[in-house]
Amino acid sequence: MQRRDFNEYKKNLGNKAAEFVKSGMVIGLGTGSTVYYFVEALGKKVAKEKLDIVGITTSNKTKEHASSLNIPLKSLDEVDSIDLTIDGADEVSNDFHGIKGGGGALLFEKLVASNSKKTVWIIEDSKRVKALGKYPLPVEVVKYGSEKLFQKLEKRGYKPTWRLTDSGNNFLTDDDNYIIDLHLRRISSPHEFSRELIGLVGVVEHGLFLDTVDTVIVGSKGEIEIIDTQVGKN
Amino acid sequence: MQRRDFNEYKKNLGNKAAEFVKSGMVIGLGTGSTVYYFVEALGKKVAKEKLDIVGITTSNKTKEHASSLNIPLKSLDEVDSIDLTIDGADEVSNDFHGIKGGGGALLFEKLVASNSKKTVWIIEDSKRVKALGKYPLPVEVVKYGSEKLFQKLEKRGYKPTWRLTDSGNNFLTDDDNYIIDLHLRRISSPHEFSRELIGLVGVVEHGLFLDTVDTVIVGSKGEIEIIDTQVGKN
Repeated sequence: MQRRDFNEYKKNLGNKAAEFVKSGMVIGLGTGSTVYYFVEALGKKVAKEKLDIVGITTSNKTKEHASSLNIPLKSLDEVDSIDLTIDGADEVSNDFHGIKGGGGALLFEKLVASNSKKTVWIIEDSKRVKALGKYPLPVEVVKYGSEKLFQKLEKRGYKPTWRLTDSGNNFLTDDDNYIIDLHLRRISSPHEFSRELIGLVGVVEHGLFLDTVDTVIVGSKGEIEIIDTQVGKN
Repeated sequence: MQRRDFNEYKKNLGNKAAEFVKSGMVIGLGTGSTVYYFVEALGKKVAKEKLDIVGITTSNKTKEHASSLNIPLKSLDEVDSIDLTIDGADEVSNDFHGIKGGGGALLFEKLVASNSKKTVWIIEDSKRVKALGKYPLPVEVVKYGSEKLFQKLEKRGYKPTWRLTDSGNNFLTDDDNYIIDLHLRRISSPHEFSRELIGLVGVVEHGLFLDTVDTVIVGSKGEIEIIDTQVGKN
């Protein structure tokens, strides 16, 4: 697929997601390259249809983008709850659990998702997998003692690597933490593994998003499929 | 007890703890008003006996104090492991679990404790309780979404309050997070409660220190009692 087609394809996904947004809603705005096109579509919809919505962002990047499109924004703490969050995912399993955080925004994405009545993920078909784990699992960690934590993860066989910037420094999240990526190949018991990771001192959050998504919008071969996951939330 | 006697009493506890430190050790230095006297005693010991030790601090406050006494310091990430950590506690149960974080240093204290071969707590007898929970349990939380988290804790009946500074602003930890104190009166299943809290999105760490302490030095009525907890660590 050529680059231009590829962007066209993500654009269609973004437009489809924007159709879920109705006037009066508080909308969680995810982060990432597919969500980018949703935010673009939403900006147009707000301008054209005079939609009365409020966006809750999951990263500084999305905040700047949404702000430039004049989408009204509030902080998570300024609203009672979020009606609908639209986000991407790096990997989605057959039973609709996901890995997120390839863009480094997992903490705020999870905070927004955990306060949303409904969550929609927009993904390309290539992100669907039988079981999670081929995509590196991001773990957001407190800086102090992070070398020790890295060694602990290494000893357990989780093949950690540091998330670095292009210039070779530690990547910093919007909450000023580091990210360690785990190269696991396959996560056979995601709920158990989630509890293990979050129980490690110094782990702030990780990229396993379990029992989170209500609807997945999948783009495959030019077609768009909308899947109701039937996942009981919270 | 008059203030002068009281300080004398904490001083004795600090001196006793300093006896545990031998040359060649890497020592975790806790935070708090009792630990203050231990750090004082350690500083004198280093100067007098030319002890070859390295201190790993658990807060900016202790770092400044230890540094002013010329105790050699390193970061947690610069050492292989910690031989012995000496810290205080706000409450210690009959089965030697503890609540810590009254001073707001729980995250770094737990990071240091979890990398220590041996942990000693120095406490006054008044800190010993049958079951934990009368002392407010500190929970360190990410700023973003913390109002939402506060409401969640309130709904669950955990009677949260914000930790504030004297000027009425949110207290900021050394890792730049907020603290919410839970007024629980009694925590009947600390391990279960620990897992519940750490599983909440936005919780960085909490003040339940379970299966952590090897030795408790208790000061009571001028006497000092040393208790080996027989707690199997990690």
